[in-house]
Amino acid sequence: MSKQNIYDNEAFFEEYMKLRSREVNANNLFELPTLYSLMPDLEGKKVLDLGCGSGERCMEYIQHGASKVVGIDISEKMLEAAKKNYSDPKITYMNMPMEDIGNIDETFDVVISSLALHYVEDYEGVVKNVYRLLSDGGIFLFSQEHPVNTCYSGKGDRWTRDENGRKIHANLENYCVENRYDSKWFVEGVQRYHRMFSTVINTLTEAGFRIVKIAEPYPTKELVDKYPEYYDNFHKPDFLFVKSQKT
Amino acid sequence: MSKQNIYDNEAFFEEYMKLRSREVNANNLFELPTLYSLMPDLEGKKVLDLGCGSGERCMEYIQHGASKVVGIDISEKMLEAAKKNYSDPKITYMNMPMEDIGNIDETFDVVISSLALHYVEDYEGVVKNVYRLLSDGGIFLFSQEHPVNTCYSGKGDRWTRDENGRKIHANLENYCVENRYDSKWFVEGVQRYHRMFSTVINTLTEAGFRIVKIAEPYPTKELVDKYPEYYDNFHKPDFLFVKSQKT
Repeated sequence: MSKQNIYDNEAFFEEYMKLRSREVNANNLFELPTLYSLMPDLEGKKVLDLGCGSGERCMEYIQHGASKVVGIDISEKMLEAAKKNYSDPKITYMNMPMEDIGNIDETFDVVISSLALHYVEDYEGVVKNVYRLLSDGGIFLFSQEHPVNTCYSGKGDRWTRDENGRKIHANLENYCVENRYDSKWFVEGVQRYHRMFSTVINTLTEAGFRIVKIAEPYPTKELVDKYPEYYDNFHKPDFLFVKSQKT
Repeated sequence: MSKQNIYDNEAFFEEYMKLRSREVNANNLFELPTLYSLMPDLEGKKVLDLGCGSGERCMEYIQHGASKVVGIDISEKMLEAAKKNYSDPKITYMNMPMEDIGNIDETFDVVISSLALHYVEDYEGVVKNVYRLLSDGGIFLFSQEHPVNTCYSGKGDRWTRDENGRKIHANLENYCVENRYDSKWFVEGVQRYHRMFSTVINTLTEAGFRIVKIAEPYPTKELVDKYPEYYDNFHKPDFLFVKSQKT
């Protein structure tokens, strides 16, 4: 199975870092607040971060009381940035695709993954390994691109716009066709694996997880008044969050 | 809160009965097979059917071994048809909106609802009452219109078509705006309540249900070869099923 390492692509990496450094972006407005609203108490907990990227979250988990954080990422460039900016004696960074976490010989109380699982082909394999790595009652909390976002025909726009260019509806195609969809995001050929909502959930319950809570964050009216460009999230959420527990 | 009784509308009732009597329809192709694939063993079980309609399912549950079936429906016309065509000493039909099941003084092993919950405004109230009516470990299995189907702007088509009228994508609008959406289905003003996927699931888990399995049925390639008009279900599923268990 292919393990995508788009974050080590020079052009992608630079554009991505620019996007994330903007003060206002979908991550700051929707993704992070939702992630923390679902976060279990980290005090004294051992945390594994799948696709830790630039390491900022790993440092935050330590600040929230985690006793140890292991951050893994497939991208060496990302981990270089992480080690430079977010080093701590309690954080270990490992260069590893998340398909290989079966090799980790350690247990964790909380496994977190922020916006990385849609890059992974073998979701079921990752879920089974996470289950094995978690202590009893441990929490698996992740965000991914929303399933209405990861399907695509490869042709045309994902939005239909009015004569002024304003988005009037999202174009939903191939939702029931689970596949890899390649598209342009900064560079050509970014691979996302589309899984229906039912696949995301059933893979967890079949592995033994209990679904605790789902979230599909969308803007408040106040937020759209302030940042009008985010009105399109009323039509189609960017992210799906799942909080589950090992039983 | 309004309790919609569209099935007692004469024009709606006639058209609906015609649709359901067609040999090939979405119910026969997708809804029923999925319902039965998720069905627990009914042998000796007491079953409550929310929105039992014409009673055909109630009779089938008896044939599957249920010791007792209570079928409730808001529509007197539907229940007349049920009593005429699917009467059995083990079946009790009650004319009652499902918002009122709190008045039933009995427990059940299985509560089933087929394509009725999207007509109900107070989903949370129904879920809480179902939880109370179920015995420990009891199953709540329901289908509803899929959440990508129940949202709507009220303007324009739900599909974008090519120059030959063939559907090329579904128009997804207002997915994150939970509301009542009125539309025409045989008659004007059929009311459906849109709830996001997260609301459907979280309402269950917050009431104490464990999510067992989700289904979003779609056609096989063979089925579309035989009934080409159902290719549009690849873009957008009609139905969502949730099987949950009282814990």
